[in-house]
Amino acid sequence: MLALLALLPTPALADGLIDNVNGLTIDKAGKVVRFNGLLIDKDGKVSKLLERKDKRPERPDFKTDGKGLTLMPGIIDAHGHVMGVGFQALTLDLSAAKSLEEAKTMIAAYVQAHPDRKWILGTGWNQEAWGLGRFPTAADLDAVVSDRPVWLRRVDGHAGWANSAAMAAAGVTAKTASPAGGRIEKTGAAPGGVFVDAAMDLIQKSVPEPLARERDLAFVKGQQTLLSYGITAIADMGTSLDDWMTYRRAGDNGGLHIRILSYAAGVPAMIQIGGPGPSPWLYSDKLRMVGVKLLSDGALGSRGAWLKRPYHDAPNETGLGFLTDAQLRNLMSRAAMDNFQVAVHAIGDKANAQLLDAIDELAQTYKGDRRWRVEHAQIVDPVDIARFGQHGTIASMQPVHQTSDRLMAEARLGPDRLAGAYAWETMIKAGSRLAFGSDTPVESPDPFAGIAAAFTREDAKGQPFGGWQPQERVTREQALAAFTTGGAYASFAEDRLGSLTPGMRADFILIDTDPLMATPAEIRATKVRETWVGGRPVYTRK
Amino acid sequence: MLALLALLPTPALADGLIDNVNGLTIDKAGKVVRFNGLLIDKDGKVSKLLERKDKRPERPDFKTDGKGLTLMPGIIDAHGHVMGVGFQALTLDLSAAKSLEEAKTMIAAYVQAHPDRKWILGTGWNQEAWGLGRFPTAADLDAVVSDRPVWLRRVDGHAGWANSAAMAAAGVTAKTASPAGGRIEKTGAAPGGVFVDAAMDLIQKSVPEPLARERDLAFVKGQQTLLSYGITAIADMGTSLDDWMTYRRAGDNGGLHIRILSYAAGVPAMIQIGGPGPSPWLYSDKLRMVGVKLLSDGALGSRGAWLKRPYHDAPNETGLGFLTDAQLRNLMSRAAMDNFQVAVHAIGDKANAQLLDAIDELAQTYKGDRRWRVEHAQIVDPVDIARFGQHGTIASMQPVHQTSDRLMAEARLGPDRLAGAYAWETMIKAGSRLAFGSDTPVESPDPFAGIAAAFTREDAKGQPFGGWQPQERVTREQALAAFTTGGAYASFAEDRLGSLTPGMRADFILIDTDPLMATPAEIRATKVRETWVGGRPVYTRK
Repeated sequence: MLALLALLPTPALADGLIDNVNGLTIDKAGKVVRFNGLLIDKDGKVSKLLERKDKRPERPDFKTDGKGLTLMPGIIDAHGHVMGVGFQALTLDLSAAKSLEEAKTMIAAYVQAHPDRKWILGTGWNQEAWGLGRFPTAADLDAVVSDRPVWLRRVDGHAGWANSAAMAAAGVTAKTASPAGGRIEKTGAAPGGVFVDAAMDLIQKSVPEPLARERDLAFVKGQQTLLSYGITAIADMGTSLDDWMTYRRAGDNGGLHIRILSYAAGVPAMIQIGGPGPSPWLYSDKLRMVGVKLLSDGALGSRGAWLKRPYHDAPNETGLGFLTDAQLRNLMSRAAMDNFQVAVHAIGDKANAQLLDAIDELAQTYKGDRRWRVEHAQIVDPVDIARFGQHGTIASMQPVHQTSDRLMAEARLGPDRLAGAYAWETMIKAGSRLAFGSDTPVESPDPFAGIAAAFTREDAKGQPFGGWQPQERVTREQALAAFTTGGAYASFAEDRLGSLTPGMRADFILIDTDPLMATPAEIRATKVRETWVGGRPVYTRK
Repeated sequence: MLALLALLPTPALADGLIDNVNGLTIDKAGKVVRFNGLLIDKDGKVSKLLERKDKRPERPDFKTDGKGLTLMPGIIDAHGHVMGVGFQALTLDLSAAKSLEEAKTMIAAYVQAHPDRKWILGTGWNQEAWGLGRFPTAADLDAVVSDRPVWLRRVDGHAGWANSAAMAAAGVTAKTASPAGGRIEKTGAAPGGVFVDAAMDLIQKSVPEPLARERDLAFVKGQQTLLSYGITAIADMGTSLDDWMTYRRAGDNGGLHIRILSYAAGVPAMIQIGGPGPSPWLYSDKLRMVGVKLLSDGALGSRGAWLKRPYHDAPNETGLGFLTDAQLRNLMSRAAMDNFQVAVHAIGDKANAQLLDAIDELAQTYKGDRRWRVEHAQIVDPVDIARFGQHGTIASMQPVHQTSDRLMAEARLGPDRLAGAYAWETMIKAGSRLAFGSDTPVESPDPFAGIAAAFTREDAKGQPFGGWQPQERVTREQALAAFTTGGAYASFAEDRLGSLTPGMRADFILIDTDPLMATPAEIRATKVRETWVGGRPVYTRK
């Protein structure tokens, strides 16, 4: 009889205990809650937060001693590109290059190390970080590689840099015209080698598609990287059909550990993936296609961001608006009519105004809890910011962009248009729901750099002292919320993710600093010791 | 303590019992096994076959009295089109029309009943059944509907019939040339309205794509139809990406009840669905992408089947070979290199010979258990039949095609080429593994018509008496095996499906005849009373 009893599923036996931690979370009311131990149930959900005085279960299934480390909710990165992170790891990564010469040296070394690659592909270059004062050229690349095509995406994904062999392979000549929504940089009459936004496809269409097994490998790499930074869930902003099939293969094979909140790359992919509506939560809440990602303009670095007035440093340019008002409304409407959530990339003040107008109009037809998402909301005309407080609009912003872009943004915009730039605190005051992310692989996925930037507006070197436009700092608690509960809310996941309160998924990290107490430098140096998803460890620092 | 004990999962409590049945199955050795009761475990697998004398469990979770009905394995239809069955149910179905005039009456009634449809779509017409002596024409259709496009697929799916409005919408004129692998039937110089094989796409590309919710509805209809005929698993021959996404939606939402053994519609779909290899078994063995379906020729009715010598009734035609030898090998090779199973439609003797040559060559490179599938293998040169016994080749054939096509086949082929036509018994003697299917919606999915045809070679009217080419009859046991264990083997599923032996999925049907004992007429009249998949009832006859 005793043997039979031992088989009974009693509550105590199903519990796991993470004890002796400096626990913190944001609760449903937005308040910080502190705790010392965390009980997990057999479904991988939080069953109880324990204070020091609380009684511990006598025989939990497993018990982990947190050794005083800080335990906080796993980060929800509200804007990233999972496959981009993976492919960056598998191809040439130029993000460390500090000059064109350094980049050329890295390219030469990579080509020598990969003699079998028919195309040399890479990412991460940023002429702004090189002090080059111009875009790089095909000739710059030809000097290093002339025997096969080279195609390198800019750090922001909004431009690509080709050598002459790549342009020849793609059939691009002096006669090739810039497509709508794109720009071919020129050297005299000839294509200069850099292709901005929609013009990228002139080269991209000739690049061999990755094999499925390369996609699978990229996913594994991307997931590994994100988990190592403490990211347990990520809004994947622009999931292609092939990306989706890759995530499903991982799920089907038991290899999906991070939670992916997927936004399809455009309406056709949205329909093909989701069919008549958003997907259900799949694989124990590891994957869901929530809505669609649309693009209304380009990026600031490549002067693709769509501005109301010309660029300060290019008086004949106002950037690239990708969609007419009617096109934008039609796409948003197609998604909203089937209850897909709409997330629209808008960087320039003109693009933001266009989008806010569209939300205003569509909200008349598509009522209820829609959570229209503005991705980036970087350069907003101050007269438009109050509108972020209407219709449940969400500002999905990336704190590290502010510190990375500061000097470039000042050059692009001049001194008069900075009041509504990266205006986090004003967004909150306007009543917008804020969600923070990294835009990785455009930036490092490291959320601690984001948290530090969010409450200081200083970069890693402490510049500028006191913070850039310091009135836009948020509190530490607001930063933490925007990286946890804010991201969950922004993807309709607040009923299961973002907060370590009973009934929520036990997604958490053990870290060596307390982000509500430590200095900005300490926070930036945070090491993630363990990452847990659904009550199971999925990353342990070696 | 007694209350606690009641919660204990004891083996007896997890069992279900279907008792008092006339049970039969084919075991792993190919022998018929008889039983009187079936025990099912909590995973929905067969745990034990019970004879009359065997002791029954005392308190099974559930108990069903079979009331003496025959219980046999669920049918595995080795060749069908799940979405086709569903769409046939949702659009105009002309398969009951016995003449052009009847078809026109049905079309007129349908158009009147559906004034909102912008295109009139349908299937099931067969000019051979109309005694028309020619293809129908656009003018025939225009006489009924001229104000909007009409597009009707032939019963075999290998031709389409358009009215003038459809041809105008698609931009087809007298100048439009027949594409490779296709034929535009002509009326003088003008397109006549019928488009064969690859020419169908000239119209099809202009037909509005179904909405995702229409696909979902078609799936529900198709599944319902198949289960009502006792089909518990089906090889879906030509799963498009959209079909696959539909099946996955059903699986994700708990609405997938039939087992789908999927063969992707061509290599690009295969790669996009499967990625680096066949999918795992999904949803408790309800769905798996096993391999690829390729097409090497058309069909006999539309004179698309590729023959070694000209058609008897069209001396200038030898049919349509879709692929060169090199193309066929390349496609097969692309699939086989990643361990996808290869299933190739081959109807004419030339197409079969081409395919057997390709298998011969590829088997040198792709060794091991490959199970090359020849779909239809309808008209085979007797000199080639022995080759079906090599390299583990599978003949995937449809008994009802023989009875439906008999007169047409005699007209198309003349008297001298019938020795290798629908040559089931010779295939078995040659050592080929036989799998039977329906090709639904080309034919009714009813497997009992197939079983009766298989051991009689007589049609529903008993014609011709004694059977057409009666030496090609198979035994009742062979017919049953080809519809159960044969279909499982043909899709690498014999470790879980096809036989009601312990450890196999409890997929079975309760029917009112014993197919090993009843007359052909009784077998054709069989009613499926219940269909069970994975130990649960999924269809009950009202």
